[in-house]
Amino acid sequence: MELDYDPLKRFGRHLAELRRAKGISQERLALESGLARSYLSGIERGVRNLSLMNICILAQTLQLPPARLLEFSADPEPESTAPG
Amino acid sequence: MELDYDPLKRFGRHLAELRRAKGISQERLALESGLARSYLSGIERGVRNLSLMNICILAQTLQLPPARLLEFSADPEPESTAPG
Repeated sequence: MELDYDPLKRFGRHLAELRRAKGISQERLALESGLARSYLSGIERGVRNLSLMNICILAQTLQLPPARLLEFSADPEPESTAPG
Repeated sequence: MELDYDPLKRFGRHLAELRRAKGISQERLALESGLARSYLSGIERGVRNLSLMNICILAQTLQLPPARLLEFSADPEPESTAPG
């Protein structure tokens, strides 16, 4: 099974949006969740494949249901439109 | 941050329910998702901490949105009621 979208990128963008909507800095979210700041930064940049456990820890820290963190689009990536 | 519930157990039970509701055997889900049967069995028993990537692969295999797989209760575990 190959995914036709990048779940790490979608999750990372979505998490950053949820965090900002709560008015919480990346540093504070890292501190309160117990995750390293550099690790959280990697998650938000979509380069870290975090575990179910850490998804649920981030959800609890943000006072959101775990499912809320996965409410990103799973639509296929649009074709890239190279210029020229 | 400590969780007051076990997300692995909640996820595993919930995944098994979703799979059965689709009328799909564990063997078939393993085959179609590309995960090892023993690994999937461990996930459903709540002893494996799977990654975001594998959550999304299981969701796509079950033709469900990724968030659906995390729609389990995050309520604290009830106090255990030992008999006698």
